[in-house]
Amino acid sequence: MLVEKPLLQVLSGKTPPRVPLWLMRQAGRYLPEYRAVREKTAGFLDMCLTPELAAEVTLQPLRRFPLDAAIIFSDILVIPYALGQKVTFEEGRGPVLEPIRTVADLGRLSAARMTEMLAPVEAALRRVAGALPEGAALIGFAGAPWTVASYMIEGGSSRDFAAIKRWAYGDPDSFRRLIDLLVEVTSDYLVRQVDAGAEVLQIFDSWAGVLVERGLDIWALAPTVEIVRRVKAARPGVPIIVFPRGVGTQYAAYAEGSGCDALSLDQAVPLDLARRELQPRVALQGNLDPMLLVAGGAAMRDEAARILETLASGPFVFNLGHGIVPQTPVEHVAELCELVHGWRR
Amino acid sequence: MLVEKPLLQVLSGKTPPRVPLWLMRQAGRYLPEYRAVREKTAGFLDMCLTPELAAEVTLQPLRRFPLDAAIIFSDILVIPYALGQKVTFEEGRGPVLEPIRTVADLGRLSAARMTEMLAPVEAALRRVAGALPEGAALIGFAGAPWTVASYMIEGGSSRDFAAIKRWAYGDPDSFRRLIDLLVEVTSDYLVRQVDAGAEVLQIFDSWAGVLVERGLDIWALAPTVEIVRRVKAARPGVPIIVFPRGVGTQYAAYAEGSGCDALSLDQAVPLDLARRELQPRVALQGNLDPMLLVAGGAAMRDEAARILETLASGPFVFNLGHGIVPQTPVEHVAELCELVHGWRR
Repeated sequence: MLVEKPLLQVLSGKTPPRVPLWLMRQAGRYLPEYRAVREKTAGFLDMCLTPELAAEVTLQPLRRFPLDAAIIFSDILVIPYALGQKVTFEEGRGPVLEPIRTVADLGRLSAARMTEMLAPVEAALRRVAGALPEGAALIGFAGAPWTVASYMIEGGSSRDFAAIKRWAYGDPDSFRRLIDLLVEVTSDYLVRQVDAGAEVLQIFDSWAGVLVERGLDIWALAPTVEIVRRVKAARPGVPIIVFPRGVGTQYAAYAEGSGCDALSLDQAVPLDLARRELQPRVALQGNLDPMLLVAGGAAMRDEAARILETLASGPFVFNLGHGIVPQTPVEHVAELCELVHGWRR
Repeated sequence: MLVEKPLLQVLSGKTPPRVPLWLMRQAGRYLPEYRAVREKTAGFLDMCLTPELAAEVTLQPLRRFPLDAAIIFSDILVIPYALGQKVTFEEGRGPVLEPIRTVADLGRLSAARMTEMLAPVEAALRRVAGALPEGAALIGFAGAPWTVASYMIEGGSSRDFAAIKRWAYGDPDSFRRLIDLLVEVTSDYLVRQVDAGAEVLQIFDSWAGVLVERGLDIWALAPTVEIVRRVKAARPGVPIIVFPRGVGTQYAAYAEGSGCDALSLDQAVPLDLARRELQPRVALQGNLDPMLLVAGGAAMRDEAARILETLASGPFVFNLGHGIVPQTPVEHVAELCELVHGWRR
């Protein structure tokens, strides 16, 4: 008898007996076996684009923990890389990009070699798809245009988003050209991930929360809506999770308007409000503070229980409110898995 | 005939003909006359604690622009400094503190010399109070305990708040001792600012938005409530503005429960929601994106008009959603002042 995977059940609005669980950035530096692979590899991007390595680290956390999903090991910045922008990752400093600052710089970007340059991600997905533990689903992902554009324009992480906002506010028409390009290539890339074996897609908009309301509508929400529309038109039925991190009151606009199957909640989203205003419309995912997974103990257990009690009566995927951090003790992850899977509605 | 200052009118729930305006960090590096003083002074903290210099830079923006308030030039980190923690400011790097990491470190803090060490702030307030342009009000301020504690424990700005969260989650009882100490000394400090001439107080909780709901309740909201209660008990009638930056959906909890007279809104707060859910309870202040003040032009004018149309029918103070940034052109500030003061309900 074929039982549908718990994650897929939840994303189709069901409430399977076992609450599915995965953790953002679950393939990462908190795992010694990940660090071992990382140390042997020249660069972070090489790791993402070498199918054997990407597949290996994708599967590592599933060998340790009974996770309900593997998320392909990659980075949202493979898109600027494939568009021809110079992207490097420096240990402890995060990504560094040769920033795009003017309309003229847009001319240097080209989608012509996109498929070829991202073929290794597809190859990695195919490898993982063939090696998944029973019951675990495979997640593909991409960054939302606003967030990807912020790295492309700021040249890396930013505190104040001065460069992207100056461009977007000062010359919205040319900024729109970049957003439109990202909508197009991101939609295509996600479709190819589905064809390579991704059963679920997640769109990360990590920096949506820095926008004013009207900016959020046109530069974060609308492009995400368009990507969801295109991907679902091309591959009907593929469930899509959207993570507009930090948008607070505007999560409701995503629940109403984005067309996604689930919303991933950051840790600041109040649980009662999420249950009342969001869960009637979409499945929810989240939202344990990654620092509670570091702290462990009663604080972690209490908050995890509170999340489960509030949200697991509806369609719900247990996850963190943001990526797992390197200093996380692996035994806390094991304890969390037990706690979530042991919980009964 | 004595006409009450517009800012004070708004904070008592009135809607004077002219919408009052001031800008967070209005005494700052975007002003050449500020940079001239800064260059002649050994350190940032010296500037805060030299009454003539602090008073001078406090008044600088009011000489250029018809602002409705002066906010005393100081920093929220004068509190850790006065508690005996080593605090320095490095150009381009922000504040650096010798971090407090263990319960034992708490023993090194002492409020014994607090009043003496912060006397220069009082002296600066007295100077400014005697030199204010007609109609302008004088604002004193302090950081909220959660935000000040984050600098004390992280040793400066933070991206992930790993150290403070590890402490707060892992050992809430000893963390509470630090919060309680900050509630006490901050309340006293604010009362002394009132006695030195501050007509309005603002409490900045810049990092409240990184907390989970329950953490926000106990470590951000409750300590702020307690400070407001103590200050108002000691000096009845002094209006208090609270700025819990980035708390999104939880602004409503502040409107209901904090006891403040006004809430300062960051730029992500949707205006309609603010009018509908917050303004019936408290006066509002905000929330132009500082990057719109950098961009200027139609984008700035449109958003400023939208803010005024939505919020200025009730008690409202025009401000930014966060501090003014160094690259802001002074002529954009002048244009904004004209626009806000020229607006009629």
